[in-house]
Amino acid sequence: MWSYEEPVKIIFGNGVIKKLNEVIKENKYKNGLLVSDKYFLESGFVGEVLLDNMGCIKNTFYDIEPNPTVKNVDSCAKLIRENNIEFIVALGGGSALDCAKAASVVALTNDSITKYHGTGLQIPDKGLPLIAIPTTSGTGSEVTSVSVLTDHDLGRKAPIASKSMYPKIALVDPELTYSMPKNVTASTGIDVLCHALEGFWSKNHQPISDALALYASLLVFKYLERAFKNAYDKEAREKLSEASIIAGLAFNLPKTTASHACSFPLTNIYHIPHGEACGLTLDYFVRLNKDAEKSRLEDFARRIGFRDASHLADEIRELKKRVGLLVDLKHLSLSEEDIEDLVNESKHPNLLNNPVEVTDDVLLKMYRSLT
Amino acid sequence: MWSYEEPVKIIFGNGVIKKLNEVIKENKYKNGLLVSDKYFLESGFVGEVLLDNMGCIKNTFYDIEPNPTVKNVDSCAKLIRENNIEFIVALGGGSALDCAKAASVVALTNDSITKYHGTGLQIPDKGLPLIAIPTTSGTGSEVTSVSVLTDHDLGRKAPIASKSMYPKIALVDPELTYSMPKNVTASTGIDVLCHALEGFWSKNHQPISDALALYASLLVFKYLERAFKNAYDKEAREKLSEASIIAGLAFNLPKTTASHACSFPLTNIYHIPHGEACGLTLDYFVRLNKDAEKSRLEDFARRIGFRDASHLADEIRELKKRVGLLVDLKHLSLSEEDIEDLVNESKHPNLLNNPVEVTDDVLLKMYRSLT
Ligand SMILES: NC(=O)c1ccc[n+]([C@@H]2O[C@H](COP(=O)([O-])OP(=O)(O)OC[C@H]3O[C@@H](n4cnc5c(N)ncnc54)[C@H](O)[C@@H]3O)[C@@H](O)[C@H]2O)c1
Ligand SMILES: NC(=O)c1ccc[n+]([C@@H]2O[C@H](COP(=O)([O-])OP(=O)(O)OC[C@H]3O[C@@H](n4cnc5c(N)ncnc54)[C@H](O)[C@@H]3O)[C@@H](O)[C@H]2O)c1
Ligand SMILES: [Zn+2]
Ligand SMILES: [Zn+2]
Repeated sequence: MWSYEEPVKIIFGNGVIKKLNEVIKENKYKNGLLVSDKYFLESGFVGEVLLDNMGCIKNTFYDIEPNPTVKNVDSCAKLIRENNIEFIVALGGGSALDCAKAASVVALTNDSITKYHGTGLQIPDKGLPLIAIPTTSGTGSEVTSVSVLTDHDLGRKAPIASKSMYPKIALVDPELTYSMPKNVTASTGIDVLCHALEGFWSKNHQPISDALALYASLLVFKYLERAFKNAYDKEAREKLSEASIIAGLAFNLPKTTASHACSFPLTNIYHIPHGEACGLTLDYFVRLNKDAEKSRLEDFARRIGFRDASHLADEIRELKKRVGLLVDLKHLSLSEEDIEDLVNESKHPNLLNNPVEVTDDVLLKMYRSLT
Repeated sequence: MWSYEEPVKIIFGNGVIKKLNEVIKENKYKNGLLVSDKYFLESGFVGEVLLDNMGCIKNTFYDIEPNPTVKNVDSCAKLIRENNIEFIVALGGGSALDCAKAASVVALTNDSITKYHGTGLQIPDKGLPLIAIPTTSGTGSEVTSVSVLTDHDLGRKAPIASKSMYPKIALVDPELTYSMPKNVTASTGIDVLCHALEGFWSKNHQPISDALALYASLLVFKYLERAFKNAYDKEAREKLSEASIIAGLAFNLPKTTASHACSFPLTNIYHIPHGEACGLTLDYFVRLNKDAEKSRLEDFARRIGFRDASHLADEIRELKKRVGLLVDLKHLSLSEEDIEDLVNESKHPNLLNNPVEVTDDVLLKMYRSLT
């Protein structure tokens, strides 16, 4: 048995950011907050957006770290409460979007997000309406119910999910991604492939997600390198923004698995960017998972143009090299103790979604193979 | 620019019909009407459903022809008004579902559906909540905003679409399709392929639909013949129910094109079942459309395992033969006048969605090739 639900309305196109005002008016939204990535504040773009939406958006919040923290969320929620904000526009990469999504819900309570983050307590089921405008391609956060937050006090990075965190509208404008630095293009692009593959092989996979995973993977293999080489390759940028949404839809319900679980400590302890950290272990887990469930990954690999799953794993590694991403952790000269720490910190519930059991031994072997 | 929205919640699985009661209670629905296909009334199944939902569903409506008429819709709407019905459960093939969907909206007005059918007037934007339970695989009507109705007085079969006609919930139980006669399995199965291909090549195509179209096509080629040969092939039935939903999602926004436009008079005048009528011209339009938009159909054909689009067209024809569907109209011994009538009656707005212009000459040549 499976179910499917996708409440986000998606509007996609070059220049659609100019439709924001129309969208706000159509929905009769009043007194908005713009939650933005710092880059766009400094580039002057936030100023433009505010001018275009004069009267509708009066406040801005941009105190957000990459891999946003529970403190970022609490500050944002405080600002929302104090200004009686009625809707939120989130502009940025996954970090700005995730911070805004979590704040949009806790702002309606008097709680700190720490009450819900990693505690197992279900986040409340109401939130302020949110318009998500992604500037990376990307996390797919604009179409998911997930927010990934970091609590530095507890040394924990972990996702939370709730229907109340679905954006109301995703306004996806590929032109906003042109300014991504090369390494961000590469890292966020490989994240898309992880979302597609992990959504596909997750124990909770289901056919609509499978369809989307297949197509998103095709797009990444076809266009990531092109966008990496030429930031202004219009077609490649467009296709990667599409891939990001489609992969977001693909993992939203099945959720992610081993590569994402391992990414959390890699980002938290060694500051490896999210996508790069996920991608680092992706080919390893392709090989681990290839025989699961009647080798359905073999069929998937062939459908997207490879000889078999091993060939897919090889090509993931080659792609990572070509776009300048890590393929091992040799540069960190990790000790046995460091590796054990990584193993322990990788034991996130997402591991349980992996189609092959990921024991401590598997993790140990995997991390050793990278050093 | 494109947009995507899919408000239907899908619940899928063998035996999920038994969850109907739970779904009704969760949504706090009261005083329901069961709109059902006659087959299920006669088989005693409607009685079971009523027993399982005692108190929640008190009325039934089953006066529905295959290719439901505007009169069927008006009668159903009348019953809804007279009994103060608050929600609808629609159980059956596309015919029962489409009748219920249209009635769920006009019942809230004092209008006849004829006010909206084929007149260009937009159907109202509110309707009663509807739970759709398909028994064919299929029209995909359980996930679309479309209702296809026939007006015998005007000799017109045509779709209407409105957001108000989206079912609230699609409860998809593949086991309900086991009892389809062989010819219904074949006809509804080829309809799925038409939805996928037409959704893909429609001028309004967009990437999420493309992803879904590709996958649904794969499933039809892999499983239709199996289900046709063995009505109790559990896997094949399951996969065709999945394909039906996925293809429904694929054409819902782009809408259908030339094959569906031509199907309307073929069904209306010559009583060819909907899917069979659509499938009849599908390979012809594959060949017509194969060079459109940088030959994107060629790539599609290769992705689903064929050498090229011509090979895809050949294989559609072979598949139709193997499942006992018409591949021409020779048995009707059509006169030139009959053909001209067909050409004229095929000029439905859906033709405009076709990526290659379908002139009278094209239609004439196409119909002549079938006689
Ligand atoms: N919610 C979800 O479904 C989901 C899924 C995957 C990952 N995530 C989370 O999202 C975060 C990562 O998001 P991300 O990968 O989009 O990166 P990010 O938002 O952290 O941005 C990375 C860097 O790129 C900059 N940047 C972003 N867009 C830019 C642009 N167009 N031009 C120039 N600079 C730009 C940012 O300022 C930042 O310095 C992580 O915390 C990750 O765990 C969330
Ligand atoms: N709304 C949409 O999006 C959409 C899309 C395509 C087609 N349609 C329309 O749907 C209608 C066709 O629907 P359909 O192809 O599902 O056929 P149908 O509903 O007309 O049913 C065909 C025949 O099969 C019988 N039947 C249905 N399910 C059965 C089962 N499980 N066991 C035994 N008998 C069964 C019916 O009683 C009927 O005699 C047409 O009017 C077509 O234009 C609608
Ligand atoms: Zn990710
Ligand atoms: Zn159809």
